[in-house]
Amino acid sequence: MTSRFELANAIRALAMDAVQKANSGHPGMPMGMADIAEVLWNDVLNHNPADPNWFNRDRFVVSNGHGSMLLYALLHLSGYDLPIGELQNFRQLHSKTPGHPEYGMTPGVETTTGPLGQGIAMAVGMAIAEANLAAKYNRDGLPLVDHRTYVFAGDGCLMEGISHEACSLAGALGLGKLVVFYDDNNISIDGEVHGWFRDDTPARFEAYGWQVVRNVNGHDAKEIQLALDTARKSSDRPTLVCCKTIIGFGSPAKQGKESSHGAPLGAEEIAKTREQLGWKYGPFEIPAEVYAAYDARAKGAAKQQAWNGVFDAYAKQFPAEAAEFQRRIQGALPADWRGFADALIAEQAKADKPNATRKSSKAVIEALAAKLPELFGGSADLSESNGTDFKGHVSLRHGSLGGNYVNYGVREFAMSAAMNGQYLHGGLRPFGGTFLVFSDYARNALRLSALMKLGVIYVYTHDSVALGEDGPTHQPVEHLATLRLIPNVQLWRPADAFETAVAWTAALEHQTGPSLLILTRQNLPPQAHAGDHAALAARGGYVLWEPAEAPQAVILATGSEVPLAVDAAKALAAKGKPVRVVSLPCVERFLAQDADYRKAVLPDGLKRLAVEAGVSHYWRGLADAVLGIDSFGESAPMAAVLKHFGFTVENVEARVLSLLA
Amino acid sequence: MTSRFELANAIRALAMDAVQKANSGHPGMPMGMADIAEVLWNDVLNHNPADPNWFNRDRFVVSNGHGSMLLYALLHLSGYDLPIGELQNFRQLHSKTPGHPEYGMTPGVETTTGPLGQGIAMAVGMAIAEANLAAKYNRDGLPLVDHRTYVFAGDGCLMEGISHEACSLAGALGLGKLVVFYDDNNISIDGEVHGWFRDDTPARFEAYGWQVVRNVNGHDAKEIQLALDTARKSSDRPTLVCCKTIIGFGSPAKQGKESSHGAPLGAEEIAKTREQLGWKYGPFEIPAEVYAAYDARAKGAAKQQAWNGVFDAYAKQFPAEAAEFQRRIQGALPADWRGFADALIAEQAKADKPNATRKSSKAVIEALAAKLPELFGGSADLSESNGTDFKGHVSLRHGSLGGNYVNYGVREFAMSAAMNGQYLHGGLRPFGGTFLVFSDYARNALRLSALMKLGVIYVYTHDSVALGEDGPTHQPVEHLATLRLIPNVQLWRPADAFETAVAWTAALEHQTGPSLLILTRQNLPPQAHAGDHAALAARGGYVLWEPAEAPQAVILATGSEVPLAVDAAKALAAKGKPVRVVSLPCVERFLAQDADYRKAVLPDGLKRLAVEAGVSHYWRGLADAVLGIDSFGESAPMAAVLKHFGFTVENVEARVLSLLA
Repeated sequence: MTSRFELANAIRALAMDAVQKANSGHPGMPMGMADIAEVLWNDVLNHNPADPNWFNRDRFVVSNGHGSMLLYALLHLSGYDLPIGELQNFRQLHSKTPGHPEYGMTPGVETTTGPLGQGIAMAVGMAIAEANLAAKYNRDGLPLVDHRTYVFAGDGCLMEGISHEACSLAGALGLGKLVVFYDDNNISIDGEVHGWFRDDTPARFEAYGWQVVRNVNGHDAKEIQLALDTARKSSDRPTLVCCKTIIGFGSPAKQGKESSHGAPLGAEEIAKTREQLGWKYGPFEIPAEVYAAYDARAKGAAKQQAWNGVFDAYAKQFPAEAAEFQRRIQGALPADWRGFADALIAEQAKADKPNATRKSSKAVIEALAAKLPELFGGSADLSESNGTDFKGHVSLRHGSLGGNYVNYGVREFAMSAAMNGQYLHGGLRPFGGTFLVFSDYARNALRLSALMKLGVIYVYTHDSVALGEDGPTHQPVEHLATLRLIPNVQLWRPADAFETAVAWTAALEHQTGPSLLILTRQNLPPQAHAGDHAALAARGGYVLWEPAEAPQAVILATGSEVPLAVDAAKALAAKGKPVRVVSLPCVERFLAQDADYRKAVLPDGLKRLAVEAGVSHYWRGLADAVLGIDSFGESAPMAAVLKHFGFTVENVEARVLSLLA
Repeated sequence: MTSRFELANAIRALAMDAVQKANSGHPGMPMGMADIAEVLWNDVLNHNPADPNWFNRDRFVVSNGHGSMLLYALLHLSGYDLPIGELQNFRQLHSKTPGHPEYGMTPGVETTTGPLGQGIAMAVGMAIAEANLAAKYNRDGLPLVDHRTYVFAGDGCLMEGISHEACSLAGALGLGKLVVFYDDNNISIDGEVHGWFRDDTPARFEAYGWQVVRNVNGHDAKEIQLALDTARKSSDRPTLVCCKTIIGFGSPAKQGKESSHGAPLGAEEIAKTREQLGWKYGPFEIPAEVYAAYDARAKGAAKQQAWNGVFDAYAKQFPAEAAEFQRRIQGALPADWRGFADALIAEQAKADKPNATRKSSKAVIEALAAKLPELFGGSADLSESNGTDFKGHVSLRHGSLGGNYVNYGVREFAMSAAMNGQYLHGGLRPFGGTFLVFSDYARNALRLSALMKLGVIYVYTHDSVALGEDGPTHQPVEHLATLRLIPNVQLWRPADAFETAVAWTAALEHQTGPSLLILTRQNLPPQAHAGDHAALAARGGYVLWEPAEAPQAVILATGSEVPLAVDAAKALAAKGKPVRVVSLPCVERFLAQDADYRKAVLPDGLKRLAVEAGVSHYWRGLADAVLGIDSFGESAPMAAVLKHFGFTVENVEARVLSLLA
């Protein structure tokens, strides 16, 4: 029988050979964590290579994503649709084996990783989703949702701040089915970590309420098995398995050194490594008995079949729950969704009192949550301010994980990454709130939502200098523009309750990228809306207000600047200067419309003034003049701040007149 | 004699009255931490209200900056130039008492805080600066630099990921003169923290190698004094003092509750609080004996005078060191700087081999570091990749803090905030490196550099999809545009060694905002430079290459796209289509030039193509067409990626021709 050492060496060989062939990549981590991976995948992991989307599979996240070749080797060896040719094509254009694991490109890759620390945080989100769905759907003897989430993480992940946020939260919630293997190899890119990283990591995680398995020899299968046994006995504490490993294990000259981390070992060193490991096979050559030992297809098919049996029994006993569960894990909206959404928008169009869009949003969420059990909210400790604390929200708590809301604490980055994890897991439609300015703290998680094409919904309130007294640290200025410029992001900045309902329903329908709902702290008056506005607003921009006479200019505005624009347009009309007002709740959507529609809204030949309480540069290509804010804000009551920055009806009028002059 | 309780109540009263008058603000923290603040300021803090810039003062950082009224009360009571009228004007336009402490607006405010967690991290930077300068300049019996850095921090700060990064680093470096008071009041905005924050915080900090003083009653002056004694005996461990406090202490209805955190108590509750506290004075009324007890002016003047004596003795014994120290703490460049800089630029202009700008940057840093002992480098675990590991760099280590370089570990956010702290402290010119895409992890610290007008230098390498195989998670696309849009940021993207030297020298001369140096991984050919290019490049944009015939169009380019533009222009000239190439290493600087210069470089009537390997929208207002990248990148070798996105000479030619058609 092939020894476990030999099995692990297959991963080592594939990693060093693929990196060598690509002439770039990271052999050190796969060679160091190969033994752990071999035990986890061959002894414990529940998965079915023939159906990477089997819902009840264990999730496996490589948070130290530069070790992608470890994952590709495992997927290939265990029988996923990832032929050896793809491994030989590592890091080449349009291969299924990009430099870092990319969700959607490779069967079996659960998430995109590489930006350190985020893999752990996404795994926390997956574990939240699992525990939540289990609490909601499982019945006695019918464990519909029952899997673990396993994570590989290195020193880099544990140095990153997000690891604190995510792991502290995981401990507070008691996510017992989360298991993290810490690759304690004492090396990061700058060298031996002792100079800059001297944490007592086991003590740190115990302080978070985790179970910690200390001092595991990461190259000893028995010790790894024992640790896994301990981990799987935990009910309400996540487990950290601290594995002492040697980076680049097997390379005589480079093991234990940073030189094995991020560059090919070199042909000569690879030959010596083969010798040291006793690996007798050529590049990309794997003996049949190794393939046989890894092959998880039969085992996986049996497991999935058994689960199918559970599901069938469940569906008989609980047909309504089963149908809802099915719909949710498919990510489908209810069959009667569109009618519901139209009614919701029509209802909000009737709003006749000034209201903050964050409060309109809260009303909309309340309606949506009653319709969509998958709606799963939260806030980074600003629940009331963000209006995310809808009526009927139930917070998850340690020992009670069946609600529909997470108090994430002051942890914007972990919240955002956890939402990515929840969405990736399936069954939930996560949304989470913070102040717009603190999107900065979570920006790279939002970027991963966009890169992975996840329909995560970010609720960003307090969206301009109009938040007033808290001052420039809390007043976004550049954020509207800079968030719009992230590819594949749809940013909605509604102007009233009606547009807020349009934005929310559009965001829920949009499942190929994140949607951002940018909301005011302050009250805004409701606008008058014609019957066709709902369809038009969903296109991202539309003629909101048209003067009686043919317009001589156009004011473009978003959100809280829309009522300002309308007031100015009315005043100008009274002075014989007819001006159109175009509301652009989602500029990216509007720019993606056909040219005819765009020209109908913004006719050639009419000068345009853009009005938005943010940096003006964004609008330069879209308007002839801009009323914006190109400096940081000021601490003062709202009216004083807005006047200071020229956001008054009089100034908008004056700017239009100078454009027409 | 006035009791300590009475003294602390003065802070409570000023805080609740100012918040009430402003009708907005945060009374809870000042009322909860008043006793700690009173003991720290009256018994221990070394400072001189008459000279807030006295170099050897203790630094005091309110990391939970929403408690700004605590700081304003202390500054007012102890004799800073902050009259009671300013406290009555709390949170009003152009007052010296903005909602959160703002550096540069209020005497005695050491740094802008409010974005949670960053105050601690900036304090870590201050403590690094102190320890570093002390190691460098202090001599036996002449402690030129010898002060502590005190921090107030709340649950929010300790939940934020940056607190992990910064405090782990502080422990690894052994910053013994850093003292953090943890306001353990069990409350954050969403309520009692136990539902989402159950860390054993003392154990967590011990795991970082800190000294922890547990279970201090934050309302008992004696316990606070004892804790301070313990803290000040530490030599090589930072100290966390865990204070149990009651948020909103003294308010019968609201103390201990989140309702006291962020809103006025209300007139009625304030009256009851006065009664409960036994505070007999009216709003903003402080009895003379309280003022007398807080007045730190005489004590502070004596302390500063004593230090002046030390300095004079030092200057006699070590005149060269004293002069250098003086220059450094004034933030002045050496008298012969300009000549040195010109020579450095001229030297780099002679480069005749292709080189990556990150490597040109390393050569420039080596020259600069030999000239400027204040240059203080670092990297978030990418020293070699960033080229920040210049020859002659000496890393700070536990017990040996006198070098000029910090291995920050994989902690981008803490690094950036620590650089802010170092710059605020004075005596250092910090720069720090990471990959451009991971500026996302640190974005709000960069924003604070810009808001506070600090001359911090960010070195961001691997600046486009051309980094190749690491793929879209590592390939910046939106970052050039979105970083430029942060107010008061100067982003330099040099095209060769010459422009790199221009950028570095300009960055060092620029001390009213951060400079970003955006550098390539890949080699770029050196451009031909005329004698006036150094002065012109420093204006942010200039005509780099002019055809023999009058140009019919202009190509705008930055960084690695400049050689592409020049090659295309040469090819077009050979085809009888003369085109000018404008290099724009710093767009913000160029746009700030006078109109004459801008028009000379970009004449009206000539069509413009912008070429930059990033999102095109940024250039829409500056060019008629853009060759950019509006999707995420691809994992592949550089040449394949660049071809995939159309960054070839042929395509640039074709784009110009279609513009001229």
